This record gives sequence, C-alpha cells and structure tokens, in this order.
Amino acid sequence: MKTLFTSDYCEGALPRIMQRLQETNMVQTVGYGEDDFCAQAREYIRKACDRPDVDVHFLVGGTQTNATVISSILKPYQGVLCAESGHINVHETGAVEHGGHKILALPSPDGKITAKQVGDALDEHFSDANHEHMVMPGMVYISFSTESGTIYSREELTAISEVCRSFDIPLFVDGARLGYGMAASELLEGENALTLKDFAKLADVFYIGGTKQGALFGEAVVITNDALKEDFRYCIKQGGGMLAKGRLLGIQFAALFEDGLYMDAARGAVLKAARIRKALEDKHFEFLVDSPTNQIFPILTNEQVEKMDKDFGFEIWKRLPDGRTAVRFCTSWATPEANVTRLVGAIRGL
Amino acid sequence: MKTLFTSDYCEGALPRIMQRLQETNMVQTVGYGEDDFCAQAREYIRKACDRPDVDVHFLVGGTQTNATVISSILKPYQGVLCAESGHINVHETGAVEHGGHKILALPSPDGKITAKQVGDALDEHFSDANHEHMVMPGMVYISFSTESGTIYSREELTAISEVCRSFDIPLFVDGARLGYGMAASELLEGENALTLKDFAKLADVFYIGGTKQGALFGEAVVITNDALKEDFRYCIKQGGGMLAKGRLLGIQFAALFEDGLYMDAARGAVLKAARIRKALEDKHFEFLVDSPTNQIFPILTNEQVEKMDKDFGFEIWKRLPDGRTAVRFCTSWATPEANVTRLVGAIRGL
Amino acid sequence: MKTLFTSDYCEGALPRIMQRLQETNMVQTVGYGEDDFCAQAREYIRKACDRPDVDVHFLVGGTQTNATVISSILKPYQGVLCAESGHINVHETGAVEHGGHKILALPSPDGKITAKQVGDALDEHFSDANHEHMVMPGMVYISFSTESGTIYSREELTAISEVCRSFDIPLFVDGARLGYGMAASELLEGENALTLKDFAKLADVFYIGGTKQGALFGEAVVITNDALKEDFRYCIKQGGGMLAKGRLLGIQFAALFEDGLYMDAARGAVLKAARIRKALEDKHFEFLVDSPTNQIFPILTNEQVEKMDKDFGFEIWKRLPDGRTAVRFCTSWATPEANVTRLVGAIRGL
Amino acid sequence: MKTLFTSDYCEGALPRIMQRLQETNMVQTVGYGEDDFCAQAREYIRKACDRPDVDVHFLVGGTQTNATVISSILKPYQGVLCAESGHINVHETGAVEHGGHKILALPSPDGKITAKQVGDALDEHFSDANHEHMVMPGMVYISFSTESGTIYSREELTAISEVCRSFDIPLFVDGARLGYGMAASELLEGENALTLKDFAKLADVFYIGGTKQGALFGEAVVITNDALKEDFRYCIKQGGGMLAKGRLLGIQFAALFEDGLYMDAARGAVLKAARIRKALEDKHFEFLVDSPTNQIFPILTNEQVEKMDKDFGFEIWKRLPDGRTAVRFCTSWATPEANVTRLVGAIRGL
Repeated sequence: MKTLFTSDYCEGALPRIMQRLQETNMVQTVGYGEDDFCAQAREYIRKACDRPDVDVHFLVGGTQTNATVISSILKPYQGVLCAESGHINVHETGAVEHGGHKILALPSPDGKITAKQVGDALDEHFSDANHEHMVMPGMVYISFSTESGTIYSREELTAISEVCRSFDIPLFVDGARLGYGMAASELLEGENALTLKDFAKLADVFYIGGTKQGALFGEAVVITNDALKEDFRYCIKQGGGMLAKGRLLGIQFAALFEDGLYMDAARGAVLKAARIRKALEDKHFEFLVDSPTNQIFPILTNEQVEKMDKDFGFEIWKRLPDGRTAVRFCTSWATPEANVTRLVGAIRGL
Repeated sequence: MKTLFTSDYCEGALPRIMQRLQETNMVQTVGYGEDDFCAQAREYIRKACDRPDVDVHFLVGGTQTNATVISSILKPYQGVLCAESGHINVHETGAVEHGGHKILALPSPDGKITAKQVGDALDEHFSDANHEHMVMPGMVYISFSTESGTIYSREELTAISEVCRSFDIPLFVDGARLGYGMAASELLEGENALTLKDFAKLADVFYIGGTKQGALFGEAVVITNDALKEDFRYCIKQGGGMLAKGRLLGIQFAALFEDGLYMDAARGAVLKAARIRKALEDKHFEFLVDSPTNQIFPILTNEQVEKMDKDFGFEIWKRLPDGRTAVRFCTSWATPEANVTRLVGAIRGL
Repeated sequence: MKTLFTSDYCEGALPRIMQRLQETNMVQTVGYGEDDFCAQAREYIRKACDRPDVDVHFLVGGTQTNATVISSILKPYQGVLCAESGHINVHETGAVEHGGHKILALPSPDGKITAKQVGDALDEHFSDANHEHMVMPGMVYISFSTESGTIYSREELTAISEVCRSFDIPLFVDGARLGYGMAASELLEGENALTLKDFAKLADVFYIGGTKQGALFGEAVVITNDALKEDFRYCIKQGGGMLAKGRLLGIQFAALFEDGLYMDAARGAVLKAARIRKALEDKHFEFLVDSPTNQIFPILTNEQVEKMDKDFGFEIWKRLPDGRTAVRFCTSWATPEANVTRLVGAIRGL
Repeated sequence: MKTLFTSDYCEGALPRIMQRLQETNMVQTVGYGEDDFCAQAREYIRKACDRPDVDVHFLVGGTQTNATVISSILKPYQGVLCAESGHINVHETGAVEHGGHKILALPSPDGKITAKQVGDALDEHFSDANHEHMVMPGMVYISFSTESGTIYSREELTAISEVCRSFDIPLFVDGARLGYGMAASELLEGENALTLKDFAKLADVFYIGGTKQGALFGEAVVITNDALKEDFRYCIKQGGGMLAKGRLLGIQFAALFEDGLYMDAARGAVLKAARIRKALEDKHFEFLVDSPTNQIFPILTNEQVEKMDKDFGFEIWKRLPDGRTAVRFCTSWATPEANVTRLVGAIRGL
C-alpha cells in the first residue's frame, strides 16, 4: 500500500466534522441551506471576514461553484479573464463554456496573472471600435492559492483589485485552497499576510474551499459586492449545487470556523510541505515553480520517479523537454507527520 | 419544536452509513469515484439489477443528475417529453433549459403519463412535414415514484418502454424516490411488483435515489443502454457532479445495497405513510391524489391546516378553488413510529 | 401551377425595394449596419414612432430576432411568459431554450394572453417562499398580430403593459406581422387604432417585421427602454444576426418607411383577406378563430379541402376532432387582386 | 469620398445576381429553402464538387454558419481545435461558446495550423488518464483562405485531413473566402491547385462563401460525411439561419455556379490584389504575412498610414511593437481596375 501524496482529497474529514455530523444526525431541519446550522456557519464566516454585510452561500464542489458564480455574473456576450492554467480553463471539462461563456486566457508561467495583463486586456477590448465582434471581458478569475501552488502578495492582489474596480469589472477569487494560501502568506509575509478580511475587501466574490481543506465536501461562497447578491440562490439551484440536506454544509463550516480550526489545519499542511521542500532543496532538486503552499513540484529524473513510485503516490505533472519529469507532492490537513518523515527519508536516499 | 413531516430529507443518514463513513474516514483513496468503495457499490448494484453489464455512476443530487443525464442524451434540437408536473419541468429552476433543451410537457392529473400520450406526441412530431420547425422529442422522462406520490404499474411502465423502443427514443426514470416507489409496488402488486431488475430491463437509464432514501446525499445512475454509456464521466464532470471525494458516494451506496438496507428502509417509510393515510381515510378526508408511497396529499380546511400547523411541519401543496388546501405529509426512513402516532392522534382530533 | 395563399413570404420584395437595391448596388459602404442607409432608415423609424430616443437595430429573420432579444434581456434563471401558441414556443425549434431559457407558456385559445394571466403568473411566482426552485418570469412576449391572426385592442395591450411595468418586467412585442396587425386595428378601431407610436410607448422592445411585409428579409428592432439598450450589438453579432452587408437592411427599411409604403402594403393585404373572409362568411363557413388580419382560418370538410387543393396552395392548420379541417389562407402585399377573385370564385362554388 | 479597400463586402452583388433577383421577384415559391431555385443551385454545386451524394444547405452569414455547423457536430463536452487567429475564436463574439463549446486554440503565426499540431493535441488528450477533466477535441476547424489571407497547399490540407480521419474527428473548412483561396491556389500551384472537388474529398463539411464573393449574402454548406447529414435542417432553424424566403439563396448560388461565375469573380479579385502587392514589393514594403489571396497586409509607418488615409479606406490590422502599423488592403469581385490603379499610384508616391 503506497503512501499517497497525490492530492489533498485522499481522506475523509477532520475528526471534529465527523463528530458533529454524527451528533446532529437525527436532528430535523428544513432543507436547502435554510437551517440553523447554515445560519450559524454564515455568522462565523461573516465574523471572520469582519463584514456583517456579506452574503454567504454553501455549495458542494469547486467546478460547480466556479460555473455557478461565473454564470451569475456574466452577460451572454461576456467572458472571464483568467490565467491559461486556471482551473476553469483546463480542468473543468468546459463547464464555463457549457454555460455559454468564453474564457479569455492570459499567459502565465506560474499560475498567476498581473494587474498589467488585466488592464491591458481590458484596454485593448474597450479601445477597439469594432469591439462588438469580440467577447467582452466581464470579470476576472484568479485562484488563491493557484493551481501551481503559488500565491499573490498583498501588493499584487491589491493591484488586480484596483484595475478591476477602475473598469467596474468584478474580481472573483477561486479559493478551493484559500486556507493553504493564507497559511503560506502568513509564513512569507508575517503581519502583511493576506487574511479573510482582505479577500472580503479586495474581491467582489470569493470562496472558502472546504473539500481540500478538511471537510468531506463544500465550498463557502462569500459575495461582498451588493450588485452580485441578488437571486444567487436561483443560480445555485439551477446549477445543481443546492444540496437538499444543506445542513451538512452548515455543520461542516460551523465546525471549521467556530474557533479557527480551518486555519490551524491549513497551517499544519503547509508546514509539512515545507519539510518536504527543504529535503528536496537540500538535495539540490530543481522545482517547476517556486510554491510556498501545500503543493510542491520538484523535477525528478525518470529513474527517481520510478524509485519513488514504489512506495509513494504522487502526480506526474509535466514531462519536460529535457526528459525529466515535474511531479506534484501534495500535503493536507490529514497528512500524518510519520508519512512526511517517510517521504523525507526516501528523498534523502535518492 | 414542531415534528416535521415536511420532506424525506429532514434528517442525516441511516446509522450504518454514518458508522461506515466514520470507520473509513482516514483510509486514503484516489478521487473522483475511481476508488474501491465505489467499485464495491457498483458491484452490489449490478447484482441487485441482475445485469453485470450496466454502467453505474454516482452523482450528488437530483437536479444535477437529471440535467447531466438529459444533456448526455439529447442533440441540441431535441427535447424531453415529460409530465407537466415532472420535477425537471417545475422544480429545477430551468436546469434542463439552461443546458439548451426544451421540456415537452404532457398533461398529467396525477404525475404520470401514458404510453398513448408518448406515442401520440412522437407520431405527431414525426408525421409533420415541417417538423424541423419544432423541437424533436429525443427522450422520455418519468419519475418513479412521481412527484405526486403515485407509481406506475408493471403494465403501464412496460407499455411506455415499448413505445419508446418502437421510436428508438431512450426512456429515463428519475428514481429520486425509487425505493419508496418499489416498496409501494410490493404492497399493491405483490409478486407482480416492479423491482430493480425491471427498471434495468425497461429503462435505458434510471437512477436510484439516495438523498431521500437514507443517504446523506447521492444518486446512483444506472445506464443499461450501451449507446448511452460512452463518455458519461465527461458529462458528470462538466455538470459539476464529479465529487472529489467520490468515495463518500461509494461508501454510502455500498452500505445501502450490501444486504437490502435500501429496500428495508423504504418499506418502513411506506408503512408509516399508510398508517397516516388510514387515519385520514377513517376521518373521511379527501385526497388530492391517491398515492400509495411515502407522500400523501390530504385536503384540509384552512382551520384544520392552522390547527395542525401548531405541532407539525408539513407542506402547503395547493390552494383549491373551493378554499380548502391540499397539504403534503411525507414520511421517510427516519420517521420514528412515535411521530406517526402523534400525527395520527392529531388527525383523529380534527 | 397552383395559386399560393400558403404564406406571406411566397414572393420577393416590393418593387421599390428591388429598385433601390439595384440603384445602390455599387455604392461602397462600411459593413455591419453602420452605413448611411441604415442611419437613414433608423431616422425614418424613429420619426414614425415619434420617439427620437429609441434605438433601432436591423436583423435578418424572426427566429433570430426573437432569440437575440430574449437572450439580451433575461438572466440565466429567468424565463419568458408567452401564449402556448407563441411562435417562440412552437415554431422555432427551441431556439430560446438553446439560448438557456425556459418558455413559461400560458393557455391561449386565440393566440393572445391577458393582463390577468400575466399578473397571476407573476404573483404566483413571487409569492412562493421557495421560488428559487422555479424559473423566474423575467419578461413577457406577445405577438402582434398573433400566430392566429388576431390582434390586441388598445385596452388589452395597455393592460398588459401596465401589469408588466408594475412588476418591472419588460414587454416584448414580436412584430413579424406588425403592419398587418396595425392595418386591421385601423379597420376595427378607427381613431383608436394602435400605431407605431403606441408600441413605442407600451412595449419595452418590439420589432417591425419586414420579411412578411414586403421586404426580401429583415426585422427592425426598436428598443424603447433605456435599460435594454446597452451592448445590444454584441447580442446581434453573437446570435449570428449582424449582416455583413447591413446596408441591405437599411436600404429596404428606408424604402418602406420614407413615405408610408409599409402601412400601405399592409392595408392592401388586409383588405384582400377581408374579401376572402366575406366570401366564406356568405357561404356560412365557420372559422377556427375570428381573425381580422391577413391570415384567415376557415373550417372545411375534407372534400372541400380536396377540391380547393387542385387550384390553390394553402396550409392545413389543424385537424378537428369532428373530422373537418381548419386551413389557413394568407394574403400579403404581393397578392394580386386577380388571385383573390379566383379564390373567391372557388369559394362560392363550394 | 474615399476609395474603400476595407473589406470584400463594401458593395452589393454581381450584376447577374441582381438581374436574377429582379426577374424572379414575383414568382411564387414555398419557403425555407425547399423551392426549385434552391434545388437547382444544389445540383450545380454537387456537380462542381463531382459528388452527387453531398448535402447542400444555404445559410445567410458566416458566424451563423460556423455556430450552426459546430453545434451540429459536437457533443456537449467536446470542443473544436482551431488556430488562435481563427474567425470563430476572435471575431464572432463567442458564438461557439454561447452554443456551449470550448474553442481549443492552437498557436499560429499565419492563420494556419499543421497536421502535427492537430495530431499532437489529439494524442495529448486521449493519452491522459484523467481526460474527462478536460474538454475532448471533437472536430477541427480551419479557414480557407485564412483570416490572414494565407492558404493551405494540397499537401498540408491532405495531411490535416488524414490525421483527422485517423482519430475519427470531422474536419470543417470555413470557406467564407473559399473562392479567393482557390483562385490563389491556381496561381501558386497550377495543376496541383485545390478545387471544390478536393474540399469535397478532404473535408467532412465545408462551406462556399457567398457574402464576400459576389452575393448579397449567403453561404452554401456542403456536407460530405454521411454521419453529419441527419437533421441538419433542425440545426439551421434553431440557429436562426433558415431564411423564410430561402429562394433568395438558391437564386444567388445558381447564378454563381451555373457556368463558373464564382471562380471568375474570385480570380479577378486575386489578380487585383497581386497588382497592389507588386507595387508594395517594388517599394520594398514588408508584409505582416505573405498572403497570395485578396487580402494583403503591408507594414507602414504611421506617416504613411496617415497619408494613405486621406484618399483610401483600409483596415488598421495590428500596431507593431516598433511603432509601425500593419494594415489590410482588401480587393473583391467588385473592385474596379481604376481603383487599383489609383491605389498603386498612391503607393508609388509614398
């Protein structure tokens, strides 16, 4: 049996979540997210954002959440600017296009886009006299942390937010791994780190990922821009994201946010990834991208890949032109220190 | 605190399911339904259907499942025939239309449609010389049990299946309440009752509802028609229904189907509904529709509604022209006998 | 060779239109409707509407225009209220649903809907606590004249407009046969007749049909509601309706509206239909619906149908339960009086 | 009044077309492309393709035709491979995405893609174990001539066709400027030139552009692959492309194909463009791309642009990083030799 570092969704849920689900199992509630557990979870999240005015909705998974949020914002002739490596552009089987919208992909070596790229794309569109022949950029999508494990600094995120606002274009942050990103931000930037309060200020809508961060499933969408709040429940229902037993989402997010469990679990995962990264650096491995979060992308020879593959599960990320292979090791809230120790040992033995 | 008979999704899940989720919580698996738990559940379901060749897929909820299955079958210019009261036509916020397809609604007083209605609609379309100006019927959707709590007899279902096959049109059965329907069929028809084996023979694709039948969530899609099997996983992913921790669905459906728990739970709910119906009949209440499953629709005066509303939760179903109100009482796998006894007592006191 | 009364698009275009197309053939212009001919036509139409502020756009055909206007107005979870016999509901191969929207059909014996029907549907939706499970009505679509040849009176149209405004729901009038409808309104209501000025006041958007009213093709969309004007050219382009040689539409509509040709041609057609109707009434034929426009729907025995079919083309509209058949005779701007005389003679001989 | 070289749709139609429209104006026909003129045009085109078995359909414009053909071929989870500069990717306001499909753009410096690019993209997709998370390539779209005025050689086109067939993926050729491309192919390749017969062999579906090649409007879709023929008229109607007076398309295409007018007109335009190109080459102008068709893209200084702009209309195509500007001069069937002479004179004076 291999030890898996393939993803951050290899296990079930944090013990507290399992316990709460068990304890509340026979409590009767109304459906569709209108129960008291959801109300409680919403309150916790509003408090964590320091924004009593935001709308909070719970959906089941990431692809669904992205498609629903984007569909709720864009007009039919509008598209969404995003990094070419953005999850919506490469790993959601065209869910956004199925909903009728073009993804306007911007080049990105590391999963991030810049305020300049966004500004240039918007300038180019709106300065063209024949712009109605082209898809109008109607929003910006970024991931935090990104699909490459990288994060935006406060300055970078603020700059993107500002350019969006100057064009009156909503900024949407895919936070499937928001906690891991915020934990890495703490490590890198200390007091300057990005927190939920910052996302609540800088984004028009973002979500707090549960699935990859210790819940069985679930993503909490936070809408900060009043103009985007109306009728969002229609969009959830139409997109198949309105869970009949919505309580399950409320119970989980209440458990995650009542006292900081969400960030604690994320910090642990990031520290474990740091141990693995350190071991790789000590052995002078190169990395595909310099990622401070729970995903790391060392470049191995194929021999090394084969050797590691005997005992560990990980993802083959990219075959490089020089014959080597970038792989992904992923830690999570669930990764035992013992597994990290085994992996570190194996790396040292390479 | 009111006792809720509002729906069959007021509680969490059957105890065995909760226990299995707890026991397996830290087992590492691959994602997206390719784990061993899902494989096990698929085997149980294939066995229950007596069809080793069917494809089985697990999705999260009903609206999502309906939209995904329908999108996988229809060409852009095709629509789906269904009862005007069909869930897809009235309670899914236009998810089918959002996917590009018209619902071709047929009149239905009791939630059912007839083979004759289907045959006539198909005849009418294909015999019209200008039929390309109209949406082509491309499949038939029925619910078992229906949204009105009714069920098809073996003869009725067979006749619909035959007319579909004579036109080479797939038949899709929404089984969000399949178990309750099969349990009622046992009570009404004995040896002639419809079972999973029958649905596997008569339908081209159907699903076995989990959400309303004792699971936390989940619907198991069974594809019996080879022509509909290809690439279905793409459709699930695009429709947002591919759960990252797909194991959760496998674990639940394995628990439901390893030894008949699914039907046992359904039978219990139907018997409880029968007790309530009996109490209503004894008091000579009329019913909006004669439903043998876990949903019953008595007609009350507004005074009676008010009185019952003090202690019980139930749905206001329809305001009648004569001023009375049809309400819905719903039992489930979770309804305690004591709650039924309380409700029966209250009915007697009306 | 049969004389055709099958439709109002059996011939090419009014002589003046053919002449103008010929005269301007080698004039160079820019494309996509931004040429001087289109500008001229827009001015004529604004003047005819007595509304210098309206936006006027030219599209090619009716299905395209309906799909484009509806797509430009509705949010993804909204649908369009219309008569069950509305063109968008029955004869456009699901173009509206292909664009993602449900048609919320209202019963209609004569092609019209009432303000009460609209108000009740809106009330019902917005008063339901669980309304996000249902498609939200987002606009109202009516046809003038209707697919059954009928027209709304000033009172009826005003009442529908008022209920729409009270719910802040746009009213869209499909005017594929607007001229024929206005000509019939003149005959029936004299000074009280509905004119372009009325549609510009009562509708939020409507179109002036060219295809069936003497142009080779073309529909002029008039947007009176400022909120619906923005970015409409994007919608036209996306919907495939932005003609490269947009001048062709400008030239035609300028010819139709420079001095009243549009209404003159429509009046002629309506008078010819009246001659035919009179002949039918004199022979005591029944009609499927009492239509004062260029379409009439007498009920014939099958023998009579067979007899007429030898010399005349007409549409079989509806097989009646009693074995008789409702047929449609259609006149147009192009119908020669001689053809009418022949048809009237044949009717007398039945 | 400037002399326009801005596009190939600045004028009306070839004189013969105008004459035929005039002559047939009052002939009565049935609608929707089922008339005798369309039948005649279909026969001419089948003969020109040397393929009596192909289906021929007439639509109004290019964006509509592209969206309709693509929608008719792809399953919901499939996308279309095309050059990043392909018309569907940049100048159709997301019509393909509005229909639910992702465009899988391939890098292209000159508007063309290669068989290797197509093969690699298909290999990459189908060899990935998790391919259901990505959009499946379901067809290939190329333009002939391309948006950059370039054309494929026989070898290049054959190679693309072969790789498509090896993967059982349809090849669709956008022929909005098919005639200009074939005329250039004649000049470059002589006996080896690509003709309609070749497209009928190598493509699964292609269209013969009318709008930019001498018709008022219209594109003739030729479907050579039997699997793609079924129900295409439904797709046309749903996409808004079924012209009520379909005869107008039949009359025009019959005029173009009865005796070779289509190619004659195209050859003239290409020769005129060659005169202009020669003048530019003589003055040692660089070109953005080396295009042998009716579109040429010289690079001018901004002073030169300004100077030319006084007397001539042309398109600003691309601002280059070095401050210069690539512009587009476009000839057509309608360009008088005198205009070419004037332009050549002006170029010499630069």
